[in-house]
Amino acid sequence: MSIFYGLSAFLITPTDEGGRVDTHALATLLRRLEEAGVDSIGLLGSTGTYAYLTRVERRRAIEAAAGCVGGRVPLVVGVGALRTDDAQDLARDAQAAGADGLLLAPVSYTPLTDEEVFQHFAAVAAAVDLPLCIYNNPGTTHFSFSDDLLARLAGVYGIAAVKNPAPAPSEAPAAVEALRMLLPAGCAVGYSGDWHAAQAVLAGGVAWYSVIGGLLPRPSLALMRAAQAGDAAEVRRLNTTFEPLWDLFKQHGSLRVVYAAANLLGLTDAQPPRPILPLGAAERGRLARALSALEA
Amino acid sequence: MSIFYGLSAFLITPTDEGGRVDTHALATLLRRLEEAGVDSIGLLGSTGTYAYLTRVERRRAIEAAAGCVGGRVPLVVGVGALRTDDAQDLARDAQAAGADGLLLAPVSYTPLTDEEVFQHFAAVAAAVDLPLCIYNNPGTTHFSFSDDLLARLAGVYGIAAVKNPAPAPSEAPAAVEALRMLLPAGCAVGYSGDWHAAQAVLAGGVAWYSVIGGLLPRPSLALMRAAQAGDAAEVRRLNTTFEPLWDLFKQHGSLRVVYAAANLLGLTDAQPPRPILPLGAAERGRLARALSALEA
Repeated sequence: MSIFYGLSAFLITPTDEGGRVDTHALATLLRRLEEAGVDSIGLLGSTGTYAYLTRVERRRAIEAAAGCVGGRVPLVVGVGALRTDDAQDLARDAQAAGADGLLLAPVSYTPLTDEEVFQHFAAVAAAVDLPLCIYNNPGTTHFSFSDDLLARLAGVYGIAAVKNPAPAPSEAPAAVEALRMLLPAGCAVGYSGDWHAAQAVLAGGVAWYSVIGGLLPRPSLALMRAAQAGDAAEVRRLNTTFEPLWDLFKQHGSLRVVYAAANLLGLTDAQPPRPILPLGAAERGRLARALSALEA
Repeated sequence: MSIFYGLSAFLITPTDEGGRVDTHALATLLRRLEEAGVDSIGLLGSTGTYAYLTRVERRRAIEAAAGCVGGRVPLVVGVGALRTDDAQDLARDAQAAGADGLLLAPVSYTPLTDEEVFQHFAAVAAAVDLPLCIYNNPGTTHFSFSDDLLARLAGVYGIAAVKNPAPAPSEAPAAVEALRMLLPAGCAVGYSGDWHAAQAVLAGGVAWYSVIGGLLPRPSLALMRAAQAGDAAEVRRLNTTFEPLWDLFKQHGSLRVVYAAANLLGLTDAQPPRPILPLGAAERGRLARALSALEA
């Protein structure tokens, strides 16, 4: 079974104000995920603020995570960077520190062409012996992969999976089918964007790269298992219980919301890296009610 | 006279493949700008690939530039970074290394709110004693400043100028006037986006933050002086000679084009940082013809 299947739980990386990783708080979060039985852990994804951390701190986080859950829960590690040589170094670091797979986003400042992204991914894949998942997240990278570019990249040795933004539910069956037809059979197509991801799995996606799964693994696993079982009615029913949380995600961005939720649940006092600001007091009240409804 | 007036010439930062600054090639480019008589030098802007360079290399570039033209041509230095504390450190470095003014872009990965950008800018402005220009470049930062946010920021001590994308010529008079009405009289409103910038100056803008000015300062100065003199016919005539170059800028991004132009002019062999690829051979031919036309 590939590491790019099932519920991949993406967690925050707790740090101090200066960006130094709190490995103790990280271990608390990781143990919670292991105990719940998530299928993999997404370390240093967008939710894990990889873009805001130094190479040294990223390596410290991977080593701490491997020491905590390594060998028991697959570790998928984000290695995105603006420069190709930096992304290669981060990929080598991740492999040396105990990652089981890599996640690579085409981080950009100068807008990139398809050919530039292709060569960037091929160079990173060639630098290591780990399977790599293409992280297509136009909302943060401002690069959008066409299905054709994904298909071209899926032919590169080492590239084993795609993490796409989940399409609107009405479009999911056609979109998932169209992409799977273009990709080799072994390439695992998964989805992020928590509020539509379960429907994308119902439509044939094999993984949910989940922000809320990194904080509330049990209800997230219930939703994912229903989707994997093809139980559309149960997916609808469970999705309804998440609805107040999805509304907060859409309004404030999932990152600000999961930091506040981790604070409210007493898991860590860490705040997102500045300039990103914590959720305001009124929204924390809304969030507390959304979390209670989910746990009920 | 403020440093945020006139033609600000933004140059590339020549480096080796690993991102180490070639201070000799940088000095060659800087002397060319000083001899032509540009009003200021834009170091480590988007064209100067600041986002791709380490803190150490950014400081080396500023020290080299200050050693070369310091005290004679004002040095405006880009200090953008994803993290607020990093941007503050870069601002302090720039001041210590000899910058005369700062340029700050709201670099983002997680999309930022207006309040986050406001606090980020206020924190950087408070960290130094240099005047700061707000760098509004949605094409690279994916954050777009409203006129109201610019007005709020212009009230912060130290924030002295705005670098806005030049509007379409037909909209420039109304857009420039509307913004100037909202800002304090001392706040200098300048424009980037080479192909529309001279018209924005005709419409009342006081600075052109120019990519081509960093490579071809003499024809750029001719265009800017015509705009400053209010000579619309001469602006039109000179803009026509730049047209083949503007077409290449629009098609391939100005960064790829000015690197290739610097190579063609024999100024440096440096290439843009990977993943950004050099211009292809056919486009280099087109570029050579565009440069010849301009020099004729």
